[in-house]
Amino acid sequence: MRRIKATVEYDGRNYCGFQIQPNGITVQEVIETALKNLTGEVIKVVCSGRTDSGVHAVGQVIHFDTDTAIPTQSIPLALTPYLPKDIALIECTDVSPLFHARYSAVNKTYIYKVCLSKINRPLMRGRYYIVKYDVDIESMLNAAKSLQGEHDFAGFMSSGSSVENTVRNLYRLNLDIANDIITFELTANGFLYNMVRIIVGTLIDVGRGRISVEDVIEARDKADRAYSGHTAPPDGLYLMSVNYPEQLLNPEYRGKSKNE
Amino acid sequence: MRRIKATVEYDGRNYCGFQIQPNGITVQEVIETALKNLTGEVIKVVCSGRTDSGVHAVGQVIHFDTDTAIPTQSIPLALTPYLPKDIALIECTDVSPLFHARYSAVNKTYIYKVCLSKINRPLMRGRYYIVKYDVDIESMLNAAKSLQGEHDFAGFMSSGSSVENTVRNLYRLNLDIANDIITFELTANGFLYNMVRIIVGTLIDVGRGRISVEDVIEARDKADRAYSGHTAPPDGLYLMSVNYPEQLLNPEYRGKSKNE
Repeated sequence: MRRIKATVEYDGRNYCGFQIQPNGITVQEVIETALKNLTGEVIKVVCSGRTDSGVHAVGQVIHFDTDTAIPTQSIPLALTPYLPKDIALIECTDVSPLFHARYSAVNKTYIYKVCLSKINRPLMRGRYYIVKYDVDIESMLNAAKSLQGEHDFAGFMSSGSSVENTVRNLYRLNLDIANDIITFELTANGFLYNMVRIIVGTLIDVGRGRISVEDVIEARDKADRAYSGHTAPPDGLYLMSVNYPEQLLNPEYRGKSKNE
Repeated sequence: MRRIKATVEYDGRNYCGFQIQPNGITVQEVIETALKNLTGEVIKVVCSGRTDSGVHAVGQVIHFDTDTAIPTQSIPLALTPYLPKDIALIECTDVSPLFHARYSAVNKTYIYKVCLSKINRPLMRGRYYIVKYDVDIESMLNAAKSLQGEHDFAGFMSSGSSVENTVRNLYRLNLDIANDIITFELTANGFLYNMVRIIVGTLIDVGRGRISVEDVIEARDKADRAYSGHTAPPDGLYLMSVNYPEQLLNPEYRGKSKNE
């Protein structure tokens, strides 16, 4: 039995999110079915973070255990015929049996793509949030600056989450502006439920003048969702990458000895 | 009656190309139906160049004549509810009655996007040509250089075209390489049938070592399709922009007077 870490890319539009649930097809069940068909084993996969319905991934990370004789680096290509065209395992590597896609994650990076356009944009459908209003970039940048660092982000979380500690460190919240495209890049030690989408929606609302930079600081300081903005749609959201401690990426690593 | 120039964006995946034909839905008929539903007029649209099935456009240009009372600049938004989500008129302007989307075009720019990946890439499906082979960029650049300028491009044209003069001036054939993505940018005074896709397919074949730079020069000098490479699929092709003489963009322009 060995533990494998896989990088997964998917177009989230046809799935009810990553995690298995009764009401629709999820990325997890499609991958588990494909692994079963390839290896003959019943394999459960664990992801770094459950993406919602319609959210995309360029670098979702999963782990699973297998006894398959297929060499680890050959699994992505071998699995391709068993997967639909909108899900792919890009790379597989052996990792320590202590590696856990979710609990071992040190930080994650998401990007969120916005297109400013009064008109529907055919080539951006399902991949960008089309914002039809004029926005003031300066005030968005000021509001973004107030959210960087370690804060209680409960004011930027949707209800329905059972998480107890809502403090997260948002290491990076960058806005890249190129003509009519705004790309938000967020790196944190963890993200609360809908946190990226509420931060982006809030910054758009600030840009439109519907809420002020002071409201955003209130939402942060009072950890109160009433002060933050709308939840941006899933279309523009991409899980880009997840980082892990170097030692857990070593398949030989079995944890510290007592003398360490 | 006034003549209107419109910039059109579309995702070509669901259409049998631009021009009306009996075997499937085309971009042209969808736009003409929408214009009829909006204005009540039977309007024929003329495009700058007929894109094939599956080819996209960021900046296709069309012209049409209308008596509608709707202000020209309001037509894109007014037409939106009458169009499917994968076709949009981005901008409309009044132009000279002498303006013709196809015959007045001075030059056109296409881009073609290639992704080098052994594995299927879900987020690039229908938008990139996924090339699963290693390619030698240096020889591709050399071959590209040999195609720039004015040549008889009959060796880079699919049969089935009735065009008589196959000489074109390829002002620009640029390859932008960023990690696993190659973006080809081509600007010419005109393009033959499938010319961009055959040039790209040929350059990929050169990169794979299936044909040589000398073969490409033969295809050019002998104007012989037997020496060039495969036709790249439509997925990666985008009509980006079309340029016209300044005076034809002026709605007051009625042509030169006899004394000029």
